[in-house]
Formats: sequence, C-alpha cells, structure tokens
Amino acid sequence: MSQTENPFLSLAAPWIAGLTPYVPGKPVSELERELGISDSVKLASNENPLGPGPRAREAMAAVLAELGRYPDGGGFELRRALAEYHGLSPTAVTIGNGSNDVLDLIARVFLHPGAESVFSEHAFAVYPIAIQSVGATARVAKARDYGHDLDAMARLVNDRTRVVWIANPNNPTGTWLAAEPLKSFIGSLPKTCIVVVDEAYTEYVAEPDFPDATHWVETFPNLIVTRTFSKAHGLAALRVGYALSDPRVADLLNRVRQPFNVNALAQAAAIAAINDREHVRASVELNRAGMKQLTGAFERLGLTYIPSVGNFVTVDCGRPAAPINEALLRRGVIVRPVGNYGMPNHLRISVGLESENARFIAAFEDVLAS
Amino acid sequence: MSQTENPFLSLAAPWIAGLTPYVPGKPVSELERELGISDSVKLASNENPLGPGPRAREAMAAVLAELGRYPDGGGFELRRALAEYHGLSPTAVTIGNGSNDVLDLIARVFLHPGAESVFSEHAFAVYPIAIQSVGATARVAKARDYGHDLDAMARLVNDRTRVVWIANPNNPTGTWLAAEPLKSFIGSLPKTCIVVVDEAYTEYVAEPDFPDATHWVETFPNLIVTRTFSKAHGLAALRVGYALSDPRVADLLNRVRQPFNVNALAQAAAIAAINDREHVRASVELNRAGMKQLTGAFERLGLTYIPSVGNFVTVDCGRPAAPINEALLRRGVIVRPVGNYGMPNHLRISVGLESENARFIAAFEDVLAS
Repeated sequence: MSQTENPFLSLAAPWIAGLTPYVPGKPVSELERELGISDSVKLASNENPLGPGPRAREAMAAVLAELGRYPDGGGFELRRALAEYHGLSPTAVTIGNGSNDVLDLIARVFLHPGAESVFSEHAFAVYPIAIQSVGATARVAKARDYGHDLDAMARLVNDRTRVVWIANPNNPTGTWLAAEPLKSFIGSLPKTCIVVVDEAYTEYVAEPDFPDATHWVETFPNLIVTRTFSKAHGLAALRVGYALSDPRVADLLNRVRQPFNVNALAQAAAIAAINDREHVRASVELNRAGMKQLTGAFERLGLTYIPSVGNFVTVDCGRPAAPINEALLRRGVIVRPVGNYGMPNHLRISVGLESENARFIAAFEDVLAS
Repeated sequence: MSQTENPFLSLAAPWIAGLTPYVPGKPVSELERELGISDSVKLASNENPLGPGPRAREAMAAVLAELGRYPDGGGFELRRALAEYHGLSPTAVTIGNGSNDVLDLIARVFLHPGAESVFSEHAFAVYPIAIQSVGATARVAKARDYGHDLDAMARLVNDRTRVVWIANPNNPTGTWLAAEPLKSFIGSLPKTCIVVVDEAYTEYVAEPDFPDATHWVETFPNLIVTRTFSKAHGLAALRVGYALSDPRVADLLNRVRQPFNVNALAQAAAIAAINDREHVRASVELNRAGMKQLTGAFERLGLTYIPSVGNFVTVDCGRPAAPINEALLRRGVIVRPVGNYGMPNHLRISVGLESENARFIAAFEDVLAS
C-alpha cells in the first residue's frame, strides 16, 4: 500500500506522511517455523548474551508477586539510585521505556515544525524517526571513515537548530569520539541548541581517551546524556533507559513523559543492575573475547570491517549483503543488514557467546565460498 | 519553580509551557516510612486486587529466562492473539505501553497546532495532557450528572475537530453510555473526525445495553477503540494496552509507535491473559461484591456517591475531601482525591479485597466522626 493510498493521511498531522510505516520483523519462533529450522542463533540486536545478572533477577521477585499494581509513576527509587550512581540530583534524571523513549521525549519537547536537527550519516536510526515524527527538519552531516565528523556537523548548525544528536560509540558502525574534540564541540554550540550524547554502549569501551559525558552535565546546561540497561546490563526485554541533564531540562522532558512509562519489573531490575559491577565486568570481558573471535575470522577471510568499540562489528562483504544475509538465515544465523543506514554491502554482527560466534563464522565462511 | 523561571522553555515547542510538570507521587514504601506505618492498604489506582491469573504467570516463565533479548518489536504473536479474540485482522491492532501510550499515539498522529479535540468534563485526565502535549486545542463539554453529555460534545465539533475522546465507562466517575446513543453519536460525526472509545473498564460492566464498541470498528472507519490489561486482567505492573481500528488508521499509529514499546513480559502475559476468561470472571465477581460492600457503607453513612459500573466508586464527602484524604493516609489508607477532575469534595475508592474495603470503611467512618 503506497502512502498516498491511505485516505486517513489527509487527517493526520502533515509530517506523518514522511514516516515509513514500521514493518514488523518476524519473531525468531515464526522465522524458524517458516525456514523449518529449530536451533537458530540471533546476533542481530546488540543484546547481552549473558542476559541480566543475578542481582537484577533477584530484585524482580518481589515485583512478580505484585503484578496487579501500577509501577511507581515517578520512578522514585530508580531515579534515586541513578542519581547516586552518577553523583547528580534525582531531579537531573528522566527515565524512559528504553532510551528510545527518552530520545523521543527530547524530540517532542525541543523540536517542532520549523526547527532543525542535526545528526551524522550512518548514525542510529531512531534520530531521523524522532525528528520526522514531530515535523522538524533533519540535517544530515556526511560521515568521515564511517564515524561522526564534528566539523561537518558544526557547519550544519544554525539559529533554527534545536537538537544535535551524537552516538558515542555509534551504532551500527562502532566508531567513537575522544573526550577533547567532543567537549570542544559541545562548548562551541550555541546555548540555544540541545546536544544529546547517546552513550548506550559506553560500558564496552576501554579506550583511555573515551569520555564519560555524564561528568559534563553540570558544565553544559544544554547537554543531555542518555544511557540504557539493554546492553551491558542485559535487560533488553524489560525496556529501561534514562537521560541525565540540567534539572530544568529534565523538568521539560518529564512534562511529556507518560507517568507509567517504565514498567515495575524494569524499575526493580535496573535499581539492582546499576550497582552490579561484577556482571557488567563479566559481560564486557565476554564481549572483548568475542570481538577478537569475530574480527580474527574477518581478517582470515580477507574482509574489511569497521573497527568497533561496541558489542557488535560491521563487516564489508565486498558485494551486496542482502543475498548473503538470506543465505545465513537459511542456515539459522540471524544478523543485521544495514542497507537502511546507507551501507548495502555491510552486515552488522552482534557479539554473542563463543559458540554462537563460531556458528556465525562457520555459516559465513560457507556462504561466502558457495 | 514557576514555569516562566525555566529559561529552557524558550527553546521548547511553544505548547510545552502549557503542560504541568509531572509531580511524582511517593511510592507506598516511602509514604509508609514517612508516616511511620507499615501495613497500609492502597485503593487508589483502580488495580485488580487479584493481580494476574495463573495462565499469565506461567506464560512469563519462558521470558524470564531470556531477559537479555529485545521484545518482539512488531508484537506479532500478541497482535495475532488479540485479532483472533476480537474477530479482526492483526493489521487492525496497535499495541501500547499501557493504553496511555495508545492514547498518546492517537494525539501525535491526528492532532497538531490548529487542530481541535473534544472531551467531557470529569473525563480521564490523560486526554487533556495528550492534546496539550502536541499543541492542539482542547474543547471541554460540560458533563451531565457527572457523565458524558453527547449532545454537548456534538455541539463542540467543527471542521477543525480531529479527535473526540469518550471513556466508556468513564474514570473517575464510573458513568457509562448505552449502545444506541453512543452508536448514533459516532455515526453523526464528520468522517474527518476520529472518535476514540476508551474501554479500559469494559469487563466490569454487566448492564444489558452497555455496548462493545469493538464490534463497530468495521462499520466506522474513523473509530478507534482502546483496551487495557491493567484492570480486569491484573497486569498493571507490566504495561500493556491496545487499540483496534481500521487498518489504515492502525498503519498511521504504528508509524509513530516506538518499535519496542511493549516489553517482552507484558507481551507474553497478555497473550495468555486475553483468553483466561475464568480469571476475568473471578475478578469481576470479586468487584461486584466489593462494590456492594462500599456503597452499602456510603448509604449507611448517608453519603452520596456516583453510581459506578467500574472497579472504583467516587463518593461525595459533603465537604472538602483533601483533609479527609490526609487523615485516611495517617491511618494507612491510600485512596484518590479527584480535585484535579473538578470534584474537590469527592474521593475515588478502588474496589479491593473484602478485608481492604473493610479497612477503608472503618478508617473512613472514624475520620468522618472525628
């Protein structure tokens, strides 16, 4: 159905026409049924192969006995735990149904028709969707070596720019920005421009000059840093993310936030997870080994990949990736094509357990050779 | 902090100033600590005192082993289960992080600055918030006997009206609309106007001429019916609601929906709960007995209440309810003042277990006598 065929579009806000209808992917169970397989591995969504740690699991037990009760609408205990962890006030915290929700709140507060918003080529797909969904104008800066080019981004900022989005590290490329240039960039922006530093994958990064932008929240009142529990903390199923910002910015985000946006299990698990450093350490360890396993295989196969500090790596297949992806699927291996990110020859592989990575490598070699 | 003191408001979309910052309520645990009590009863949020049924609990077990995985972004199995239950196509279903999320999606698609939206005095508080959050203009129809006055609502509809909201039954009043007048009203609206029938409490209603508006979705392409699992199904902690509509309307709602808006536990539990008629029957039974218990007490005390078909009842204290509410809190009984609904002398009591209702009644008598 083409967009113009839907007569209800004429009733919708004008910018809704520019949104692509979400095409739901099939769940793994359905895919397995269709392909006639039963033991697929999924390395497609940058999930933590260990899942949550024992502390988060324990914390959910009390909530499981009280499922009929609404979540705490203000996220009182969760905001307190996050504030303590980061050394900020609870009034600096905005909780979200995943960090996607927080990114959406930022767009709803600071963007509207007539406002502009800047992000980088190959950056996380939620930024353009959030911009379009409120009728603002997207300005896309060319990437440099698949990473954010801060100079190119700065050149797109004007007095209509209200939000600049930076993913550090970036998904799906795994590229990253060092502390010094990023801090200079933020400081150079007009005070009338909100800058979002999306740190979904921050726990995985070991580079010495990689920044923790949460330390800059009190320096730059126009800075919003977002985090998630879906990656290193292993809580993707539960949906919990958050933003740290000047409390006056958080006040505005909380005006648009749905009061029960973070469910009760997610709140309980996240409170336990934020201080479970051991589980994060184990997850990061596993990721480091798995990353070596995957990139070692790419090197052996003579394939180029984008060096990644995240829990995923994007490999250049040297030819269109779509048929390779299809062939992997038939072998029960689910990874992520990134054609929608302007990278039709690349596949993004999430780092899994050693056995899952090995399953992928064997299938990939097999497909490339056939 | 007054709204004008926040300098970031000048950067926000103009309508954000009209939103009241959400003031988080304290969680029960925190309230108990402050009041020095330990055994409070909460009859404040129209929750199901039985919580979820055994089928929903069982269904979550598999997900608890996979918490590191993202939810199914398309809600494939859940939409299929809901479609089967209602005899509609999965393409008619939009899933939400509670029905609040669905109501918000409707506002984001069909409302914008310049558009108008109609609802009733004393209607559910989320409607004005959703309207304001997208910069549209609210038109509020006077209520009749605390219920929706469809004639008054019709008089407010003009060619700028894009959404009309009807809660049936309504929260916090418990009033309801019969099939015939509601169907006529929907049929009389211009085709350019979406009408939302919010059926969050529908399972509790036994009145013979009470409608099931989901049967009209194929008759009226501009009708959206919303439902929730937070009430009779007892899944408030998990956040899951949905809309049924013409698939072309659902297509637009799904463009704005965050792909992982419904968490994995909520999807699994809801699939099990939708067909657990026994648990819904037991919940409704318990509610009927509890409603008699509460209204019997009000009659004995000579107090007027608004006859309710929901799982709550709103009683006129005959004097300002705020101090009565405070006194109940000190006795460990949490109910809901409804001053923000223009009813400063009323309290809304959710129907609890027999023992919880009795705790409230004893405390209420005590407070009124003192």
